[in-house]
Amino acid sequence: MHRVRVRVVEDALDANNTIARANRDDFDRHGVAVVNFMGAPGAGKTALLERVLRDLGDVRPGVLEGDVQGSMDADRLAGLHVPVTQLNTGSGFGGECHLDANMVRSAIPDLPLHDIDLLVIENVGNLVCPAEFRVGEDVRVMVHSVTEGEEKPLKYPLMFRACELVLVNKVDLLPHLDYDVDRFLRNLEAVHPGVEHLLVSARTGEGVAAWRDWLAGIARSVAVEAPA
Amino acid sequence: MHRVRVRVVEDALDANNTIARANRDDFDRHGVAVVNFMGAPGAGKTALLERVLRDLGDVRPGVLEGDVQGSMDADRLAGLHVPVTQLNTGSGFGGECHLDANMVRSAIPDLPLHDIDLLVIENVGNLVCPAEFRVGEDVRVMVHSVTEGEEKPLKYPLMFRACELVLVNKVDLLPHLDYDVDRFLRNLEAVHPGVEHLLVSARTGEGVAAWRDWLAGIARSVAVEAPA
Repeated sequence: MHRVRVRVVEDALDANNTIARANRDDFDRHGVAVVNFMGAPGAGKTALLERVLRDLGDVRPGVLEGDVQGSMDADRLAGLHVPVTQLNTGSGFGGECHLDANMVRSAIPDLPLHDIDLLVIENVGNLVCPAEFRVGEDVRVMVHSVTEGEEKPLKYPLMFRACELVLVNKVDLLPHLDYDVDRFLRNLEAVHPGVEHLLVSARTGEGVAAWRDWLAGIARSVAVEAPA
Repeated sequence: MHRVRVRVVEDALDANNTIARANRDDFDRHGVAVVNFMGAPGAGKTALLERVLRDLGDVRPGVLEGDVQGSMDADRLAGLHVPVTQLNTGSGFGGECHLDANMVRSAIPDLPLHDIDLLVIENVGNLVCPAEFRVGEDVRVMVHSVTEGEEKPLKYPLMFRACELVLVNKVDLLPHLDYDVDRFLRNLEAVHPGVEHLLVSARTGEGVAAWRDWLAGIARSVAVEAPA
């Protein structure tokens, strides 16, 4: 019985990975770098995109917005004159708490892949399930807000392991919090040794230039690998 | 095909509700009031429990801690000399992102139901799936941190609808945020008209007395209904 259950889960993840590879092939064919952008609700994902998307030099960005319901984040980003596609997970039930490869696949016909170099897929706000499902991305970036507490890597280790960059956001609030950055970084290193991180504030702009350069660098490195 | 899929989901929720009712019967038989305590990661659920559990007068509390992994919150609460039982959802896969009735059922033999009047079930930090699964509770309370932004009721409506009380936490940070409490309350009213709320700060203690009285009141009202 136990083995049967595990097998079902493995098959579900296998199917997801198969579709994720198909998505990745489509993105590669267009020379589009793809970032799976994750974090808890309210960590500041949309605000950190607003800060940099207009400012990527020759890199032309697009966004795929994943939300249970509504288009509030997409509406915010559309004001930047960046192509934004909305993907809602909320049909029936209470809504899916994450994006999976098949949901992203269903959105591909609506993405302007010929006109962009970088696609940021903003996932549903959640520190558990989004980390379990590849969607066809090149890299995964997560946003952690200092208001969430230093112990979060130990409580949600898969999420902190499943990314190439951790943005530590809202550092402007540090003087008003009992939050020890060094303790957070020790916890992060314990679950994901050597992972890159940047201290940022979407509100004040601290660290935003480094975040912008990191994102532009990802787009350029993928473009170099893409077929001519 | 579509109808078959919906039927499967209904059956899964039906099974959950059946088990939730069995849990509820067990709790009622012992005269124990049960609170399903929900919120995003880092909203301050554990901190708000730390503030009140020692101070409930003649109400004897216990806690069931739901986490993907680890026992950090349970360890914090055990320092209060309150009975705490740990329930981890992280076997295999990346861990379940919510508690369901069957997980809570599996913990019942380990709960000191004869020695408590109030059981607080701290759910996994998540604004989506915990709202979909009853676990046998009398009431549901959710914690929203002002650092998450005023639009959260519109983005995660099921969670804000599925509770009898919303604790608006970290109000000590309001002077340092671009957060409009009135706008949040209008958004909350739009998705859940008339729901109770309390403005609180686990850090400064603001509003904590009202939260404590609300929680003690729930325990006393359920005790009155319980069989002698």
